[in-house]
Amino acid sequence: MEHENGEKIEPIFPANNVIDLIDAFSNTAFNAKRMGEAAKIYKEMVESKSFIFFTMAGAMIPAGMRLIVTDAMKNGFLDVFVTTGANIVHEVVESLGIGHYKGDANVDDVELANSNINRIYDVFLPQRAFEELENFVSPIISELDGKYTTFEFLWEIGKRIEDKNSFLRIAYERKIPIFCPTLHDSILGLHVAIYRKKLEIDLFKDVYSMLDLCYQKKKFGVVIVGGGVPKNFTLQAMLLNEGFDYAIQITTDSPHWGGLSGATLEEAKSWCKLKENAKAVTVYCDATIALPLIYSYLKFKD
Amino acid sequence: MEHENGEKIEPIFPANNVIDLIDAFSNTAFNAKRMGEAAKIYKEMVESKSFIFFTMAGAMIPAGMRLIVTDAMKNGFLDVFVTTGANIVHEVVESLGIGHYKGDANVDDVELANSNINRIYDVFLPQRAFEELENFVSPIISELDGKYTTFEFLWEIGKRIEDKNSFLRIAYERKIPIFCPTLHDSILGLHVAIYRKKLEIDLFKDVYSMLDLCYQKKKFGVVIVGGGVPKNFTLQAMLLNEGFDYAIQITTDSPHWGGLSGATLEEAKSWCKLKENAKAVTVYCDATIALPLIYSYLKFKD
Amino acid sequence: MEHENGEKIEPIFPANNVIDLIDAFSNTAFNAKRMGEAAKIYKEMVESKSFIFFTMAGAMIPAGMRLIVTDAMKNGFLDVFVTTGANIVHEVVESLGIGHYKGDANVDDVELANSNINRIYDVFLPQRAFEELENFVSPIISELDGKYTTFEFLWEIGKRIEDKNSFLRIAYERKIPIFCPTLHDSILGLHVAIYRKKLEIDLFKDVYSMLDLCYQKKKFGVVIVGGGVPKNFTLQAMLLNEGFDYAIQITTDSPHWGGLSGATLEEAKSWCKLKENAKAVTVYCDATIALPLIYSYLKFKD
Amino acid sequence: MEHENGEKIEPIFPANNVIDLIDAFSNTAFNAKRMGEAAKIYKEMVESKSFIFFTMAGAMIPAGMRLIVTDAMKNGFLDVFVTTGANIVHEVVESLGIGHYKGDANVDDVELANSNINRIYDVFLPQRAFEELENFVSPIISELDGKYTTFEFLWEIGKRIEDKNSFLRIAYERKIPIFCPTLHDSILGLHVAIYRKKLEIDLFKDVYSMLDLCYQKKKFGVVIVGGGVPKNFTLQAMLLNEGFDYAIQITTDSPHWGGLSGATLEEAKSWCKLKENAKAVTVYCDATIALPLIYSYLKFKD
Repeated sequence: MEHENGEKIEPIFPANNVIDLIDAFSNTAFNAKRMGEAAKIYKEMVESKSFIFFTMAGAMIPAGMRLIVTDAMKNGFLDVFVTTGANIVHEVVESLGIGHYKGDANVDDVELANSNINRIYDVFLPQRAFEELENFVSPIISELDGKYTTFEFLWEIGKRIEDKNSFLRIAYERKIPIFCPTLHDSILGLHVAIYRKKLEIDLFKDVYSMLDLCYQKKKFGVVIVGGGVPKNFTLQAMLLNEGFDYAIQITTDSPHWGGLSGATLEEAKSWCKLKENAKAVTVYCDATIALPLIYSYLKFKD
Repeated sequence: MEHENGEKIEPIFPANNVIDLIDAFSNTAFNAKRMGEAAKIYKEMVESKSFIFFTMAGAMIPAGMRLIVTDAMKNGFLDVFVTTGANIVHEVVESLGIGHYKGDANVDDVELANSNINRIYDVFLPQRAFEELENFVSPIISELDGKYTTFEFLWEIGKRIEDKNSFLRIAYERKIPIFCPTLHDSILGLHVAIYRKKLEIDLFKDVYSMLDLCYQKKKFGVVIVGGGVPKNFTLQAMLLNEGFDYAIQITTDSPHWGGLSGATLEEAKSWCKLKENAKAVTVYCDATIALPLIYSYLKFKD
Repeated sequence: MEHENGEKIEPIFPANNVIDLIDAFSNTAFNAKRMGEAAKIYKEMVESKSFIFFTMAGAMIPAGMRLIVTDAMKNGFLDVFVTTGANIVHEVVESLGIGHYKGDANVDDVELANSNINRIYDVFLPQRAFEELENFVSPIISELDGKYTTFEFLWEIGKRIEDKNSFLRIAYERKIPIFCPTLHDSILGLHVAIYRKKLEIDLFKDVYSMLDLCYQKKKFGVVIVGGGVPKNFTLQAMLLNEGFDYAIQITTDSPHWGGLSGATLEEAKSWCKLKENAKAVTVYCDATIALPLIYSYLKFKD
Repeated sequence: MEHENGEKIEPIFPANNVIDLIDAFSNTAFNAKRMGEAAKIYKEMVESKSFIFFTMAGAMIPAGMRLIVTDAMKNGFLDVFVTTGANIVHEVVESLGIGHYKGDANVDDVELANSNINRIYDVFLPQRAFEELENFVSPIISELDGKYTTFEFLWEIGKRIEDKNSFLRIAYERKIPIFCPTLHDSILGLHVAIYRKKLEIDLFKDVYSMLDLCYQKKKFGVVIVGGGVPKNFTLQAMLLNEGFDYAIQITTDSPHWGGLSGATLEEAKSWCKLKENAKAVTVYCDATIALPLIYSYLKFKD
């Protein structure tokens, strides 16, 4: 233990510059330090031209994280996006110009129901949004014919979106795969179940495609926002290969509950999903705070 | 506010009887009170002959919750089981007699990897388990032909299991549907992707089956252990119907992170997934503690 | 890693007997296993005739944990009690027969204020309680003369309480020290500040008394409910001595926030507050659930 | 529910300017939104010339938050500072030039103990720091004579510190009261107990001083970092007065555990500690992240 030769913690000084602040975070402790490290690891992932899986669980699109995904796709800060059916649903809702409303978590939910408003913590969404979603997607679903992966299906949606801020559209244009292993676990999934005629979406084909992506001769990185199925689906794809070289994880779950969303990245090493010497760090923080900070660092740091 | 006519909190007295202790919990506060209420609501679900969906996320089978599922199936304390691919994988591992080992969360994961041990928090699982799993399931997967829901596929597995404690076997014998909306997000899912010849598992057919189950002329109850996809997949099935009459939820997540696993049951009312006057309570507790207690109450309380 | 010779996790079977259930918990994982271990360590503390510090933070007395403290004092399951000013205040309120009421956390707090009801999460307490408290304690405070430790002061309160369930009374009768390092941080503390004439309560004398208690030729155990000042105040008393032999901790805080309440018992070893080979375990659980279970095990297990 | 006329959530765009980012946070959801609101409320506190209590619990000084306190004192962004004994200890350690070291939470604590290193999550502190602390404070403690409040005692320490970045020194120079209701619950408290000759520190006099401060004809604000005794000690001082006009709280605790550190600011209204119409918001976030951001906003926003 040569701490005396070690690095001192440097008390942070307020700054008006995100880069300065996050660089300073690296020299503190607890989750500020972890955030500083995560920002640097993400930067190294990009600079080393690693192949980057970006996973997103939790209601991040309703909460305003949409343009970060779009921007990451435009800048090559992600190569594959893996997310939940819910986030896809809310992305389409945003793309149709309906949007989400600033609400309140301390309300009478029965009264909300009677006003046709759905609540996601402090986000309000009018029931009308789902009607417009249905109007938009049901003809697409009815028309499609054949066996699709989720990303091929989502490209079909993206192709028909006009909003230039839509990451579904960008993904279509740039042929970036969006894997949605819980597509069926969403309102869009209900519509697929109800409106499809000859459409088949084969989630096991998705598994195969993920496995294939892990066989490239490249370094691999993973950015995990919020755990859940997107996290596991991505990590397990590496089971048959050598493991990720880089990993950052933003979560509000804790290791001691024993679940996957809170599992440490160290634990993933016992499964060989991360390489022995992978650079990896977990930031325990609401992603609505941590993601814009880390992403801004990535984007603006020279 | 007529609190003075209200009920007093009654300080709890130690007891050696689970029923007494949980009945006493009801007259305390915080999560002990919530646990007492949850136990009573589950009891009322059963006594009112409600149709009961039981959802389970998190590594509950590795952590020893398996026989509760089996027992609940045998006693009619659940009508539908909705769980993750991981829990199914670990159920098969248990059924094959391999089992899980008492481990430690503070270990060197690289050393574990080198010893071919996979870690799930403080549970150790030898790599060998997955080899035996593969030997057992790969011929089944290769042999099956046709389009299956997940529960039909899992009945095929259960049919071939000899262990009488296996809930997969019991589910097969009693034709209890086990929905597994994240089957593809597990090692069993990898095997399906790799070994299938003519097998198709259509998760959107699962959606349809869930919707169908919600059209019965019955009261409906839901027992939610741990959130995740099993929670959402079950609640959304009620979207086109009238909402659950009863709901209990055991979770370690918090509402203020905005995600579904921590979302209150009140929030579900804004979506009409629960009836306005549904009896519902959330217990914030590790399910390895709360589930055996609540279940024991259900089983032994007259 | 000799896991194959290790112990298997044994799936838990429902039981109506607390001892059986907690013994079974020991063979599972996550926090059920930790609870099983904690119960056994507390039992060993008692059986080895260790000197036991019992610390309690959080609103445990309002939440109904009062009789456990009383019972532990009567049975010699604690030798010193260290708690917050708030818990002492609520103990007096209970002793005066006013009690606490079953309330609700989802209420309009302004309306409560207008109805003279104070809320502690889902516990309601009429403002009147504090008036009766004031009537009871103000003459005692005015009358006392001299320099007191908190435990000597609290014995003076206990001496005047008639309720036989009062742990303040039992502590007085049996000369069990109740340290209250945050006495001034409570409504009782306000009364002391306002009504005292010649009374001095010297908290640094408390420190000295705690240090003294750690110099006995005995094994030492600590039961930590909820962290906070009672935890630190007790652990730091051991700084000048050899460290605790046994420690159990029930907390809902997490290590990764960096605070003391969530700090692991391992961390305490770096400070030599616990012995190298101390038997120690943390249970991550609401203490309203964990404490009655662990305590009942201690009381009824042969 | 007029949500349709309500405000839309505006997806956040990455920025390199802290002000822009936090202003954008206000238009999102979850804790980013709460952080945006908290920053604005703190700004309004200052601009309305409110009398500001700033409370800090948790190991914030070891984690690098020291200069924010110093800067806030210099700029009039706080009028009273309320913190723990531990934070005072670590401030003196910093002021003596010893500092804290960047460590790791996944270490062998027994090995650390043998190397004379104390651990605070991922912060390492050499045992030597406490020896130098003792050398510095013991003569002061021995020399002081009379009855002191904690802030008067801490001014005596500050007077003797040379480091211009020391907030103890700044507090002395500007006569800013630093209340330390848990002074005795720290290593400095141990030194007081051991080395004092004629020094008395009367914590009930502190209570009286706090009450006095709440009788000014001013608006009152409170900035709560981390809960604990500093939070309660400050809020209870307002019990005999009209309540705070502004309150922001940064915490990682949750309401549903029932403890004070996680208690909502709404709950404080039932106690009349906050005014009915107080502007108040809680940010659920590690303060090492949230505090530098909010403080930087306060400092640099026009």
